[in-house]
Amino acid sequence: MNFEDLPIAPVVILARPQMGENIGAAARAMMNCGLTELRLVNPRDGWPNPAALPMAAGGGEIIKNAQVLPSVAAAAHDVTLLLAASARRRDLSIKSTDPRGAASLMLAHDRQQRLGDDSQTVSAINAKQGRVAMMFGPEASGLDNDEVVLADLLVTAPLNPAYPSLNLAQAVLLFAWEWRMAAQLDIGQVDALVSPVISNDHSKLASISEREIFFDRLEAALDDGGFFTAPEMATSVKRNLRAFFTRGAPTGQEINTLHGVIQALSRRRD
Amino acid sequence: MNFEDLPIAPVVILARPQMGENIGAAARAMMNCGLTELRLVNPRDGWPNPAALPMAAGGGEIIKNAQVLPSVAAAAHDVTLLLAASARRRDLSIKSTDPRGAASLMLAHDRQQRLGDDSQTVSAINAKQGRVAMMFGPEASGLDNDEVVLADLLVTAPLNPAYPSLNLAQAVLLFAWEWRMAAQLDIGQVDALVSPVISNDHSKLASISEREIFFDRLEAALDDGGFFTAPEMATSVKRNLRAFFTRGAPTGQEINTLHGVIQALSRRRD
Repeated sequence: MNFEDLPIAPVVILARPQMGENIGAAARAMMNCGLTELRLVNPRDGWPNPAALPMAAGGGEIIKNAQVLPSVAAAAHDVTLLLAASARRRDLSIKSTDPRGAASLMLAHDRQQRLGDDSQTVSAINAKQGRVAMMFGPEASGLDNDEVVLADLLVTAPLNPAYPSLNLAQAVLLFAWEWRMAAQLDIGQVDALVSPVISNDHSKLASISEREIFFDRLEAALDDGGFFTAPEMATSVKRNLRAFFTRGAPTGQEINTLHGVIQALSRRRD
Repeated sequence: MNFEDLPIAPVVILARPQMGENIGAAARAMMNCGLTELRLVNPRDGWPNPAALPMAAGGGEIIKNAQVLPSVAAAAHDVTLLLAASARRRDLSIKSTDPRGAASLMLAHDRQQRLGDDSQTVSAINAKQGRVAMMFGPEASGLDNDEVVLADLLVTAPLNPAYPSLNLAQAVLLFAWEWRMAAQLDIGQVDALVSPVISNDHSKLASISEREIFFDRLEAALDDGGFFTAPEMATSVKRNLRAFFTRGAPTGQEINTLHGVIQALSRRRD
């Protein structure tokens, strides 16, 4: 169920989750981010829970394949890097970071384990390597300290101090998203500094000479219509118009449309 | 309602939202990230919607203060940078980026507008400046193309291509979180490369000489107990034990506890 060229996705462990709806919504968020393996420790209302599947939407398979285990230790039996999500710092001597830092550590852990591993398939790699897991506590109280001390890292998102408590599925999304972004950045599937680009096919952009023909026609038509009432301003007004139309990076098709606009407006004037 | 030293938070516009629960959950996510201003365009089930408030949790004030407007244009009347969230690319000539790129553009927009603005209060700044807004479409279909073309930017999260469709409130969280992280990075409230740190007070860490006394005692006790059966290995075994105990960066208190451990174990042997 690994859909892409990304590293092996982390396991999600929900410790003592309370509401089936949240388990379902967590599965949807996992699916959105390409995570597939869900482990439930003592879900309050038993399992399967009929409230989970409708909320899972496209993540239904994750719900169907979810494992139920009697303790965090059992759920993390094959895990070699365990992250504990928490809305609050704890009075425990445990290393802590934020979800972005956690994502980068998860990837580093994965990379290190793969070094020298010549396994060909994801399942073969999974079988040999320790897994990475993110663990989340119950909705009402979060993880208890006995669960947190099992983890290598406490991960706390720097949220609004007036109300930092995320819904369970929202917390799963936030951690899964940060893992996914880090993984995609790592393999160059996403750019670190994304400049907005126009989704146009670049080959369809108007050339400078197509723009120039348009500008000349526009200026002639405006001149003809008595637009440049103050001749001393004409040069700078023309320059500003050119800058405006250039800023939009028009396609050849758009330049054609703009020619039509000039024609139609001129006709109206006549 | 701006709780922190962050830039003015973006407005959230929900166009034709369907379920009150999602509007509530979106408000909670906004509150988690320090966004407070919610505008609803033609909510399907009218407004107020009794399903919204319970899901809003700590974001109840956002629900109570939400404005209802008849069109996207009306909801964005004071907005000078409008982002349209979409799970899919559109066949439209519009600039597009991902949520992280969008966050950095929102902050740049805000910075540019503040330049030379000597207003002292957030409300005075809000009154004079154009706002930034993130806009989200209805659950079933997303924004329609007539809504998207009103926006400066189309923002698409690079999610699992097998199922990229986020729940509405999850989409709001993802965008709001990216804005918050970018804003906090910008003012140095969060580090760009977060190394995990131990939450211990650093002044309480054991000194090198405290560690040394412990190591000496441990090694003597082990020697006494016949631990070093192969004398030629003793040096490297001792070195590895020192490395292990050092890696945990023990506090003075922990070193005291470890002294107690040696004592107790030795007593048992006697």
